[in-house]
Amino acid sequence: MFSHNKRLQYTVRVSESNPALANLLLEQFGGPQGELAAAMRYFTQALAEEDMGRKDMLLDIATEELSHLEVIGSLVAMLNRGAKGRLAEAVESEAELFRSLQGAGNDSHVTQVLFGGGPALINSAGVPFSGAYVDSIGEPTADLRSNIAAEARAKIVYERLINVTEDVGVKDALTFLMTREIAHQKSFEKALYSMDKSFPPGKLPGDPRFTSLYVNTSTGEGDASGPWNRGEQWEVMTPDDTNIPVDGGNGKASVDLSSDEESVVGLFATRGASDPSRDPVTGADLGVLQQEPKK
Amino acid sequence: MFSHNKRLQYTVRVSESNPALANLLLEQFGGPQGELAAAMRYFTQALAEEDMGRKDMLLDIATEELSHLEVIGSLVAMLNRGAKGRLAEAVESEAELFRSLQGAGNDSHVTQVLFGGGPALINSAGVPFSGAYVDSIGEPTADLRSNIAAEARAKIVYERLINVTEDVGVKDALTFLMTREIAHQKSFEKALYSMDKSFPPGKLPGDPRFTSLYVNTSTGEGDASGPWNRGEQWEVMTPDDTNIPVDGGNGKASVDLSSDEESVVGLFATRGASDPSRDPVTGADLGVLQQEPKK
Amino acid sequence: MFSHNKRLQYTVRVSESNPALANLLLEQFGGPQGELAAAMRYFTQALAEEDMGRKDMLLDIATEELSHLEVIGSLVAMLNRGAKGRLAEAVESEAELFRSLQGAGNDSHVTQVLFGGGPALINSAGVPFSGAYVDSIGEPTADLRSNIAAEARAKIVYERLINVTEDVGVKDALTFLMTREIAHQKSFEKALYSMDKSFPPGKLPGDPRFTSLYVNTSTGEGDASGPWNRGEQWEVMTPDDTNIPVDGGNGKASVDLSSDEESVVGLFATRGASDPSRDPVTGADLGVLQQEPKK
Amino acid sequence: MFSHNKRLQYTVRVSESNPALANLLLEQFGGPQGELAAAMRYFTQALAEEDMGRKDMLLDIATEELSHLEVIGSLVAMLNRGAKGRLAEAVESEAELFRSLQGAGNDSHVTQVLFGGGPALINSAGVPFSGAYVDSIGEPTADLRSNIAAEARAKIVYERLINVTEDVGVKDALTFLMTREIAHQKSFEKALYSMDKSFPPGKLPGDPRFTSLYVNTSTGEGDASGPWNRGEQWEVMTPDDTNIPVDGGNGKASVDLSSDEESVVGLFATRGASDPSRDPVTGADLGVLQQEPKK
Amino acid sequence: MFSHNKRLQYTVRVSESNPALANLLLEQFGGPQGELAAAMRYFTQALAEEDMGRKDMLLDIATEELSHLEVIGSLVAMLNRGAKGRLAEAVESEAELFRSLQGAGNDSHVTQVLFGGGPALINSAGVPFSGAYVDSIGEPTADLRSNIAAEARAKIVYERLINVTEDVGVKDALTFLMTREIAHQKSFEKALYSMDKSFPPGKLPGDPRFTSLYVNTSTGEGDASGPWNRGEQWEVMTPDDTNIPVDGGNGKASVDLSSDEESVVGLFATRGASDPSRDPVTGADLGVLQQEPKK
Amino acid sequence: MFSHNKRLQYTVRVSESNPALANLLLEQFGGPQGELAAAMRYFTQALAEEDMGRKDMLLDIATEELSHLEVIGSLVAMLNRGAKGRLAEAVESEAELFRSLQGAGNDSHVTQVLFGGGPALINSAGVPFSGAYVDSIGEPTADLRSNIAAEARAKIVYERLINVTEDVGVKDALTFLMTREIAHQKSFEKALYSMDKSFPPGKLPGDPRFTSLYVNTSTGEGDASGPWNRGEQWEVMTPDDTNIPVDGGNGKASVDLSSDEESVVGLFATRGASDPSRDPVTGADLGVLQQEPKK
Repeated sequence: MFSHNKRLQYTVRVSESNPALANLLLEQFGGPQGELAAAMRYFTQALAEEDMGRKDMLLDIATEELSHLEVIGSLVAMLNRGAKGRLAEAVESEAELFRSLQGAGNDSHVTQVLFGGGPALINSAGVPFSGAYVDSIGEPTADLRSNIAAEARAKIVYERLINVTEDVGVKDALTFLMTREIAHQKSFEKALYSMDKSFPPGKLPGDPRFTSLYVNTSTGEGDASGPWNRGEQWEVMTPDDTNIPVDGGNGKASVDLSSDEESVVGLFATRGASDPSRDPVTGADLGVLQQEPKK
Repeated sequence: MFSHNKRLQYTVRVSESNPALANLLLEQFGGPQGELAAAMRYFTQALAEEDMGRKDMLLDIATEELSHLEVIGSLVAMLNRGAKGRLAEAVESEAELFRSLQGAGNDSHVTQVLFGGGPALINSAGVPFSGAYVDSIGEPTADLRSNIAAEARAKIVYERLINVTEDVGVKDALTFLMTREIAHQKSFEKALYSMDKSFPPGKLPGDPRFTSLYVNTSTGEGDASGPWNRGEQWEVMTPDDTNIPVDGGNGKASVDLSSDEESVVGLFATRGASDPSRDPVTGADLGVLQQEPKK
Repeated sequence: MFSHNKRLQYTVRVSESNPALANLLLEQFGGPQGELAAAMRYFTQALAEEDMGRKDMLLDIATEELSHLEVIGSLVAMLNRGAKGRLAEAVESEAELFRSLQGAGNDSHVTQVLFGGGPALINSAGVPFSGAYVDSIGEPTADLRSNIAAEARAKIVYERLINVTEDVGVKDALTFLMTREIAHQKSFEKALYSMDKSFPPGKLPGDPRFTSLYVNTSTGEGDASGPWNRGEQWEVMTPDDTNIPVDGGNGKASVDLSSDEESVVGLFATRGASDPSRDPVTGADLGVLQQEPKK
Repeated sequence: MFSHNKRLQYTVRVSESNPALANLLLEQFGGPQGELAAAMRYFTQALAEEDMGRKDMLLDIATEELSHLEVIGSLVAMLNRGAKGRLAEAVESEAELFRSLQGAGNDSHVTQVLFGGGPALINSAGVPFSGAYVDSIGEPTADLRSNIAAEARAKIVYERLINVTEDVGVKDALTFLMTREIAHQKSFEKALYSMDKSFPPGKLPGDPRFTSLYVNTSTGEGDASGPWNRGEQWEVMTPDDTNIPVDGGNGKASVDLSSDEESVVGLFATRGASDPSRDPVTGADLGVLQQEPKK
Repeated sequence: MFSHNKRLQYTVRVSESNPALANLLLEQFGGPQGELAAAMRYFTQALAEEDMGRKDMLLDIATEELSHLEVIGSLVAMLNRGAKGRLAEAVESEAELFRSLQGAGNDSHVTQVLFGGGPALINSAGVPFSGAYVDSIGEPTADLRSNIAAEARAKIVYERLINVTEDVGVKDALTFLMTREIAHQKSFEKALYSMDKSFPPGKLPGDPRFTSLYVNTSTGEGDASGPWNRGEQWEVMTPDDTNIPVDGGNGKASVDLSSDEESVVGLFATRGASDPSRDPVTGADLGVLQQEPKK
Repeated sequence: MFSHNKRLQYTVRVSESNPALANLLLEQFGGPQGELAAAMRYFTQALAEEDMGRKDMLLDIATEELSHLEVIGSLVAMLNRGAKGRLAEAVESEAELFRSLQGAGNDSHVTQVLFGGGPALINSAGVPFSGAYVDSIGEPTADLRSNIAAEARAKIVYERLINVTEDVGVKDALTFLMTREIAHQKSFEKALYSMDKSFPPGKLPGDPRFTSLYVNTSTGEGDASGPWNRGEQWEVMTPDDTNIPVDGGNGKASVDLSSDEESVVGLFATRGASDPSRDPVTGADLGVLQQEPKK
């Protein structure tokens, strides 16, 4: 069960109204690399986790991410507070309010007009948060790698936001949030490598004919090599007419249909057959020149 | 520039019609862990990549994933081919076709009725493919980790599909596709660790006060420790009334408004103030018992 | 700041595996009327709230909804736990696993194949949670009404789930969750009517010519009257050729363009003009009968 | 059956081109609080309604909302008409057109480039309309409350648009549209309270132990009371270690698995177990310092 | 302005409850090829149309499609009416209701549990209607072709639904709806070819070097020819190392950066450079075998 | 199987950084009329195609569209390259970077902050690519028309982009891409009319009573005629009280319920009945004036 203390995990001190910056920060509130996506990634994993140690870690970090959602949301609310009041009370002229709405820039008009300046579950483009941002799949060797990657992405987006933030208090809070992603990544890394065997993920082994094959499908100037395709672990093939398909078959797709199915597929094919010998007049041809009126 | 050979990378031999299995396989065609998501993840990274070695690798693997998209799509098309013919030609009675549509089960009705049996850019629930599945963010230390995680997830979904597939030819092709995810993960791992420094990702260092802090936000029976929160790299805090916020401030959110802003926010607050001393009759109260007619 | 106790708000006791029921319950985990939507609705409102009493209430209820998210997610995890193990370990034959996946029914195949049996941020159709479910707009007289309506909807969806649940422990937990929606609705009602004036919402008055007008746009057998269009508060108009537009104008849409704009719009119109006097041969005409080959 | 008169319900007179204002107005065309969402909310309810009086009211209001969709769409079309001509005919230089596209601001570039200046089913951020905006669930006591809330939200968004609109004709039409939301809210309120009993919504009673419980989950400075948690109707609990779970159980999630299921879940748990006693070298550790080349 | 007559355009007579068929019919209510998409496609075009003849036609057909939305929605409501009552009133046991919910099959559980049996703005998979289904772009030569194609697609989906419908009254109404798509396609074809010149669409001519070029990018067994790549109108090229890029340049992507930009891009590249000469130990390597505990 | 040559199909030469133009070009990368949508439209059709000639054509064009995706993506990457370096390396002050991010305009902030300047699967509004853009339905007479329409739409969006592009190299590449859409449209037209019979699409004939009926649902000033509703092929009806429904029935929706179903629907109706004779006090009434405190 969750509980809440009205004090934030990190104090939010904003030095002036800035709806445009608020809008950029929404990226970490309702965006794909944001705090809700993070909290839900770990929370959904925790609920189905069978390992009690990882479960505790996932709950700890999920709960902290909810607290970060509160910090970033509070930053958004404070940066928008003045603009919210202006638009709701409308003591200025319509022209002034229109100019200030336009002048703030980026997608801050959406936050103002649709959401009244409140933090909304959207990213900085106004796109609603999606459950599809949460890539948990219920297998620890995959999920922990997803968590590691997600923390790395979130760290970078915070870094970019810090790079464009002049407000000292906002920058300070963003730096705290960015730093916590580093710490979380470390925890997930430790958890991944605490398992006996984490590669290949899952249970089924790969087909040994193809686990060390590197397929050089892109050729031409710029072809390169590195440890990802060179050395003892690798065998390289450049596909050409002589070596595909890799299974030695005919490279075609086929299905054994029942005779009834063969028959209806035949009907379907016949009905839709094109006649390659014909060179028909087409709709495009009709559209090239004015036609004579018919009646 | 891309080119195409009509031979598949792996021969597709399906032993009988099975629209339900076809629908499950759509998970790897248009689903979040599927081949289009993979191809586009690496392709978008390749186009903006500054390191020529990684760029080549990303193009190689992106192109191969497109070839896998073709293999999985061909499996779907073959498994649906008979059902497609039956529904389009309708030589059976309506009742028979309805029964067979219902009988196939899971979401195969969508593939049949909406898509005519063709492979569609949806997952096994019928949800359209989303660009949001592609988590590339333009920073190699994050993107390579995203790629590693994505390959791990794809490997697992293939494993699950293999576990429910009785058709020998389908299973064989799925095993090939699953194996290639293992090889790709290896390549991305090599590329990540070929960089001088990949942790913390990006350029900005963390705030040293918070990089090694583990916040034990979830307590009670089940609290555990492990390398993710124990050892030299960690300092643990359990938040309580005495130690939050972690910055030593007052834990509140504040903004310095201009006096004009203060004034309009004041108006807004006054207009929307609630009177806590009142115990009003409410809409719910009105809805509890039948009211007397008023006229 | 949030914290978490590993004990649930309500004990979850599931009597047997039931992936189909689990899938239905996802409606209240990641669906439009579910607990995450509720928690985020109130949480986003709380962060921007200016009235301290309502802010506290919104935080109380948002936090409780997160605890309900945990209860419903735990129900899902328990109902899926057996199926998760079977699919991951695959000690049964592929045919058996396929049959049991198909047999469970509804969209449970998505939970199994894509999410490995974990609670996912989707609804019972497999549609990802959307930030668009959260209808907060930053104005208390509207938001409180949205909250009242949302609680009513959630109560009903729980009622339907209870009606199809035979498992005593699941039913018991669902009844608790349903009941809490009733209590929350009562709180939001009290908060709405604690305000001085909550109707019309917002600050601008309506145009008095149109606030009491009922427009009878749907006519014919079944036309009815009730307190929604009859009595002192209402004036009814049935639109016809004589009384629209209601402003007494010409009912057209017009814009004053600059002469340069007039000119380019004229060019655009001319280029795209249709000739109503022509009866052209069309693509459809071409498609009716086989054409003669041209060469 | 619907029919249409080419006269609008309200005359649209726009005084000059203004693509930026057009883009803001899209919020009420294809946005979540817009006229299509409203029309479809009431229309879908009407089709399944069993009460003939409400059915008529829902059809009346749905049809009027379609007429409002036409008014707001005509405003958008007129405000964009000049810009549409300029971009399509391109009699100006590319540089001039680029500047004017950029200069219009907010998301008007999307309306111009993608939609050619026509009203599109998007909101002011360019996000496509979603059927998820329509929250009808087929139960009158919930749906009428959803309608009341939706009218309140739409009224507010119109109010904000009016506050930033200087164009007298546009403001006039927006005021008409805003006013009608007030009238519609009144009708839905009357309909709700014309029912015998509308609270609690639906048929099942709540569990009396929990209908009057207020759970004070958020504590600390700012804790408040009001009619939503104080008075005869309420009993308050502040959750702590002694009183959760509220059912008196152990607060855990459990499921009775069959022995076969226990066995496969055991295999799964063992395969994925973490070893808390190990302090492994991790990928992050590898990424901290340059490694020695291996070959 | 719209008005409504309570009589349907076509009488709906359903012979028995069938929630599964209802769910399939949702494809034409809230699906991509459905009636709302059609109505909105033509309605949005009409509002911005400059040609008065086409504008009238678009309004006629848009309004008729709304009437079709009402017919298909009424079919859905009638097919679900019995199931709605059963679930809401719950006079049967939970087990019976669960079985009947499961037994109905396909995605009908979503319509029942989430929408209470009402017609919802979703397709047969439960995916919410999207404004992205409406492909109007504000250029008549393109939009009319989109309309022609959309009518063709809708006709086919109706055909498939008819093929699986045994209920005579439903089949009859579906046949009416299907037939109207044929008539509408004819109208749009006439309108397209009533224009002076509809090909190429728009104003800018193509580059004559590339308008008649057919690029044979897919080679191998199955390479074919037909009027789409053979005859006077075509010149065929098979891309190879000697003829790409087609512009005779170097086929590379380049940008002239300022010296400051060159410098920061150089820093970025250096920071992220991979060392191809290194063969590093990777996270995957660490995950292959159990590591020794470190402390 | 696909392969890739590192040379582009068309050389990309960008003359200076321009993130705003880059963002507009995303419309053709990840937007609804863009190259990925095109490639996937043809590729999904090809996989299920039964006619070998069309299958080859679809594969040729799908593969070329992937090559166009590479060209447009390379344009985006080059236009963003400078901005990417600046944001990542942050050698300028935060204020300068914020100003330049804001100054670039339109939605380029999303590309920079979320995607680090890489081409992303979004459109120019930041909306993620959707599989719903792909309207293939598995019936050639419909799919070919969809392809023709899609090429026309893509041609127009390129035309608009060309109209706002001053950069000679970008304009040149866009002109190439636009031209290819013309060529592709021609191919699809030839393929459509190479079929024996393409109208009406599919197999079922229309009901002859309704194939030539034009329903004049929109009346009033502006009513017009043209070849789409006049001439031998058409019979016009203007719906009124005397001629609807068109089937001569009662125009109502009905279903034959079993007696059990009748009974539960009756219970449901009774429980939700409104009393039209009552004029109840409502929540809105309560909200109009301040209430007296109750205690």
